[in-house]
Amino acid sequence: MTRRVRVVEKVLSANDRLAEANRARLDAAGLFAINLLASPGAGKTSLIERTVRALAAEMRLAVIDGDLATQLDADRAAAAGAQAVQINTGGECHLDAVMVRDGLAQLPLEALDLLIVENVGNLVCPTHFQLGTHRSVLVASVPEGDDKPYKYPGSYRGVDALVLNKLDLLPYVPFRVEHFWKGVAALNPQAAKFEVSCQTGAGLTAWLDWLRAGVAEYRTGDRAAEREAA
Amino acid sequence: MTRRVRVVEKVLSANDRLAEANRARLDAAGLFAINLLASPGAGKTSLIERTVRALAAEMRLAVIDGDLATQLDADRAAAAGAQAVQINTGGECHLDAVMVRDGLAQLPLEALDLLIVENVGNLVCPTHFQLGTHRSVLVASVPEGDDKPYKYPGSYRGVDALVLNKLDLLPYVPFRVEHFWKGVAALNPQAAKFEVSCQTGAGLTAWLDWLRAGVAEYRTGDRAAEREAA
Repeated sequence: MTRRVRVVEKVLSANDRLAEANRARLDAAGLFAINLLASPGAGKTSLIERTVRALAAEMRLAVIDGDLATQLDADRAAAAGAQAVQINTGGECHLDAVMVRDGLAQLPLEALDLLIVENVGNLVCPTHFQLGTHRSVLVASVPEGDDKPYKYPGSYRGVDALVLNKLDLLPYVPFRVEHFWKGVAALNPQAAKFEVSCQTGAGLTAWLDWLRAGVAEYRTGDRAAEREAA
Repeated sequence: MTRRVRVVEKVLSANDRLAEANRARLDAAGLFAINLLASPGAGKTSLIERTVRALAAEMRLAVIDGDLATQLDADRAAAAGAQAVQINTGGECHLDAVMVRDGLAQLPLEALDLLIVENVGNLVCPTHFQLGTHRSVLVASVPEGDDKPYKYPGSYRGVDALVLNKLDLLPYVPFRVEHFWKGVAALNPQAAKFEVSCQTGAGLTAWLDWLRAGVAEYRTGDRAAEREAA
């Protein structure tokens, strides 16, 4: 098994180099990009639909959708008003930097303000693969249960923001909101935290403001200038 | 990447050999074993609790619980009345045959009738690793959405039974039951199908009968005798 581990490490570091190249392309274009992670069915695509509908009038959005199979999610993002690229991983359990590079090649990066990369629904594997995005966001959902930070610490530890979705189901399932956030705080105290319902639209304002701040930060092109000066 | 694929294939076939050895031990003990797969939060542990409580008076049960971290699930299974072994994969996204072999070594196999192996919550990776169990069961849940068979075909294709859980949430989420089962039928028409709510207890009778039939089939020891005669 040692040999397998070594080969996988080599693959990972090749991935990291490609992720850096993706980041450089995004920075040069002044395009803020996030990597959206979640279990299957936590509501990544619904959050994207809500986000695109809310922001389409004020900025130019694109979505790169990673799935094992089907074009369903890209179709939903496109219907909401984003430019959308579907990537089928063909069985792979995560997106990697090569797939995102190929997605970026299909988008007019300089003519975009916000790029959302929707990863494969999986709480384990995607956390091991950098994509080059500026922020990672984990979408959790109430019916998954309040024990998830405790049971999947890796994915909760590595993200910049946490969105707890399906708040509208709180009356119908056993879920202790405080217990959930206590687990999050132990792993990742500095992450931005949001409680939303993509079904009703509740709580989305703070999330949208967080995205606007990221877009403003990268739109200036300061990062690209810094990189050239270095 | 070709080299990586070859190494992983070698690891998989070593896993398959160990899975066969696990199966031989289970057969020799006359112990029926199932591998329970699902997304995080679909309700595997709740289904185990319901199952153990319902069957504990008529048979001897054990649970091998696979998780990235914590002892939470084994504690729940033990509280319900099963012998329980927790396996922490330490970051691995699936159980493999070695981990199950180590779990089996901690249980009195000849003194058991039903073994439930609870895999890591993940709709992708566990399907690639045989464990040696007699049946694979996928637990899906209503709030995950009715598109899951279409988006995660591999996990729906490879199982012997499908349990659709959280039926009690149907009034509160958009979920077309027919659309879900149509997707399942296209991938896996012969799978046994169950609709349940582990919250209310609805629909569990058919599921329990299916387990009883498996236990009766393997309890006879016919399989072990066949193996010896071959």
